[in-house]
Amino acid sequence: MSTASPASSRSTGSQEARSAHYERLVAHIADASLLGSTASILGWDQETMMPDGGLEHRSRQLAQLARMSHEMATDPRVGEWLGACESDRSLMADPLSAEAVNVREIRRAYDRATKLPASLVEELAKASSIGQHEWAEARKASDFARFRPHLARIVDLLRQKAKCFGWGPGGEAWDALADDYEAGCTAASVTAVFTPLRERLTKLVHAILDAQSKGRTPPEAFNDFAVPIEAQEAFARHVTAQLGFDYGRGRLDRSTHPFCGGSHCNDVRMTSRYNERVLLDGLGSAMHETGHGIYEQGLRADQIGLPMGESVSLGIHESQSRMWENQVGRGRAFWTWAMKELPRFAGDGVRRFSLDDFYGAANVVEPGFIRVDADEATYNLHIMIRFEIERAVLRGDLEVGGIPEVWNKAYKDYLGLTVPDDRRGCLQDIHWSMAAMGYFPTYTLGNLFAAQFFEAAREQLPGLEDGFTRGEFAPLKRWLNTKIHEQGKRFHSGNLCVQVTGKPLSAEPLMRHLEGKLKPLYGL
Amino acid sequence: MSTASPASSRSTGSQEARSAHYERLVAHIADASLLGSTASILGWDQETMMPDGGLEHRSRQLAQLARMSHEMATDPRVGEWLGACESDRSLMADPLSAEAVNVREIRRAYDRATKLPASLVEELAKASSIGQHEWAEARKASDFARFRPHLARIVDLLRQKAKCFGWGPGGEAWDALADDYEAGCTAASVTAVFTPLRERLTKLVHAILDAQSKGRTPPEAFNDFAVPIEAQEAFARHVTAQLGFDYGRGRLDRSTHPFCGGSHCNDVRMTSRYNERVLLDGLGSAMHETGHGIYEQGLRADQIGLPMGESVSLGIHESQSRMWENQVGRGRAFWTWAMKELPRFAGDGVRRFSLDDFYGAANVVEPGFIRVDADEATYNLHIMIRFEIERAVLRGDLEVGGIPEVWNKAYKDYLGLTVPDDRRGCLQDIHWSMAAMGYFPTYTLGNLFAAQFFEAAREQLPGLEDGFTRGEFAPLKRWLNTKIHEQGKRFHSGNLCVQVTGKPLSAEPLMRHLEGKLKPLYGL
Repeated sequence: MSTASPASSRSTGSQEARSAHYERLVAHIADASLLGSTASILGWDQETMMPDGGLEHRSRQLAQLARMSHEMATDPRVGEWLGACESDRSLMADPLSAEAVNVREIRRAYDRATKLPASLVEELAKASSIGQHEWAEARKASDFARFRPHLARIVDLLRQKAKCFGWGPGGEAWDALADDYEAGCTAASVTAVFTPLRERLTKLVHAILDAQSKGRTPPEAFNDFAVPIEAQEAFARHVTAQLGFDYGRGRLDRSTHPFCGGSHCNDVRMTSRYNERVLLDGLGSAMHETGHGIYEQGLRADQIGLPMGESVSLGIHESQSRMWENQVGRGRAFWTWAMKELPRFAGDGVRRFSLDDFYGAANVVEPGFIRVDADEATYNLHIMIRFEIERAVLRGDLEVGGIPEVWNKAYKDYLGLTVPDDRRGCLQDIHWSMAAMGYFPTYTLGNLFAAQFFEAAREQLPGLEDGFTRGEFAPLKRWLNTKIHEQGKRFHSGNLCVQVTGKPLSAEPLMRHLEGKLKPLYGL
Repeated sequence: MSTASPASSRSTGSQEARSAHYERLVAHIADASLLGSTASILGWDQETMMPDGGLEHRSRQLAQLARMSHEMATDPRVGEWLGACESDRSLMADPLSAEAVNVREIRRAYDRATKLPASLVEELAKASSIGQHEWAEARKASDFARFRPHLARIVDLLRQKAKCFGWGPGGEAWDALADDYEAGCTAASVTAVFTPLRERLTKLVHAILDAQSKGRTPPEAFNDFAVPIEAQEAFARHVTAQLGFDYGRGRLDRSTHPFCGGSHCNDVRMTSRYNERVLLDGLGSAMHETGHGIYEQGLRADQIGLPMGESVSLGIHESQSRMWENQVGRGRAFWTWAMKELPRFAGDGVRRFSLDDFYGAANVVEPGFIRVDADEATYNLHIMIRFEIERAVLRGDLEVGGIPEVWNKAYKDYLGLTVPDDRRGCLQDIHWSMAAMGYFPTYTLGNLFAAQFFEAAREQLPGLEDGFTRGEFAPLKRWLNTKIHEQGKRFHSGNLCVQVTGKPLSAEPLMRHLEGKLKPLYGL
């Protein structure tokens, strides 16, 4: 594996002429990314700092940067340089070298950006802008019929988009769309993992519901212990710094919806939100974003703005956030350490809670209608329902008008819930109105990757969780840095999983994680 | 005066063809400014929010935006559109119409930007970069000899720059340079006001020194009353909101050096810094920046990115900050109101101070070596010394090597001080090392304009200061909005002064302000 920076590659004679194409290519792409990194700061600012009055001008600033950045990324010279690089055998000799990976991934992005006719891009932007407005109104009124024609229009355009990306007879439109979020992911590969997962998960959830109906629940009193927001934020900073987030190269602020943004590996901006009554909400959000943040901070500084310095996919990004939030943050080992730190921030009143109290409160299962409020176990069932529906709609097996019925039936079957209205049903998420189909599964892929990576880490790092009890999280962070973060886009997610864990992605590790934790907690 | 926005101007037939040039011109310039407004947010972020790790990448982001914005501003099509506009008689018929002013000022900026050869721009950037580094080292070591060759190089380049801007026989290089900061300002016009100002000011300062030596000083005990930073900041927010700063369209944060930045009239970002022991420091800074902020918020939203939506000059900008800081913030009327508000923030302990205590503490005169620490009276003497020196150097009347001697003699004559070393003498300011000559006088011009504008406001708005005692500052703000802020760059500063006050700029109002206040305070 080459670790030479683009600028430091040495060559002579005819190699020099060839590598000049590569140098021009990466300089140009890094320049386009630089503009994108400016847009990211503006985006962060908008959510955290910008006064209300700035909104209109901000959208103009962002539109300008997007336009300029798109012009640079689709400059015809990029195609020429790519062609020259691809026919340069010595440059591409090792397909896993930084240079070959950059060429491969710049090609991917260039083809996707140039394959869509401007008219379709515009139609999609318009339909999604109208769609989001109509969705918001429809949700308020719990009136799916209002949203229906707009969603139908979006689906029609998405099928056209998929055609531009090569979707044809025998293929699935879903696959062509999902490639934007999870390169190489297909509906068939998702189904292969989701099917066994759904079976075991519904069984587990139903068993837990049964136990709850018999009064068997973990202790959850800590979720009623109020802690001032300032103290919660200070504790979140303390914990996330201990996990390995570097505050010399990042920040933690507040926003309505927690996110992780920023500009590049040395300036990563996370946010969380806090609920005075439930400390675990804000802490969980902060630990989740810290997973994203540690990933971003772990990317290669010598490859900023290039694929080798970028994250693999949404699924792999989510695996990092979920691992720190769930595998680490809801574990006994973490709380053995954290419960000793907490009184310094939350006061001595918190000393009355035992390890079992923290562990119990962090792992309550409670099926509900709303995905974003779901617990670790039921969350994935929400995702599967959305995946099955969007896949069927894109295949033409389901009319848009039939979504509410299919949705409600699935919530009854999987979660035992009767959806009371579309507001709390198929109108709850913004994604489809934004023309994002092929996106939802990346959340559950994240959970699956997280569990499988964490099992591998536990195997490869003896005493890992013992260390957690003493606040030692650096071994896990370093392992993730080496195995995943520093790899940039070298592997697509499926291959990365094999590289890191020795096995293709499977439902087993996640089910082992959930069953191993929840069965004892609910006395199953 | 036309107030039609560029987009709303109606025309028919051949007028349409002509106005198309204007529409293209302003659309292009507004687009270049939009990129500049993005850079401003990045600049603010760097001083207030950015983690240390972000510095290197940030300079790349800013350099890219500066390059792109410069390319847009010097696009040869701008010259063509300008030519077409200038020969369009109906467009230019009223030289004070928004359209004619925009064309005039875009021409000014375009000519200045295109008259400098790229090689000179580069040389200046290099010399100033080295200059700032060498200046910082020289200041640390209090070693002017180290800085001298670099300053000589900068002066040489500045004279070349002045030549590009038309400086020739009989003219002054200083004038050509000052035009960047204060359009239309000349060394002769500055001297005409500074000479009488210096005479009366040195007399006043010497009389005060004499009084002080006899133990006659205003009460200043309030400057030893410690108030927690958080409480000071909350008080500063309360006061500045009352003055008229709109927090729905702006922010107040902290930074090492207070400044007012932001993006446009609806997103203005001020900072202050607080000293736990001296409340007036942070409050004064906040009120100063609020003057800048109210100016920015008062600019025309329909002219964002165009000269008619921009401030006149540094001197006029400074007049707004100084007026709210000094004419308002150091006055009895303001403190009559403010002293009743303060206990809510600083606690009941502050009730022991009387109006005389606050007024006295806000108006202490104390000559010192350092410009940025100077009081309202002595400040202008610091500026005059710098102006006289930079003018003489640019004329060739003074060798760079002779600066320390002239500097130290002037401090003795004007302020009665013996400068102990160059660190506290001619090496204290960064400006010359940044190749900024012609800049310093704008600070004192600001004080002069502030006093003259405030006298006019008092005449035109009966009961103005009575209102202050009840916390009513809106009449002054509205007056400034109409007379100055909404005028954009319609008038250069000298003409604006005549428009607003009926008289050309003079030393009288500032001296009346200072003498009227300080003579009674020091029993003169």
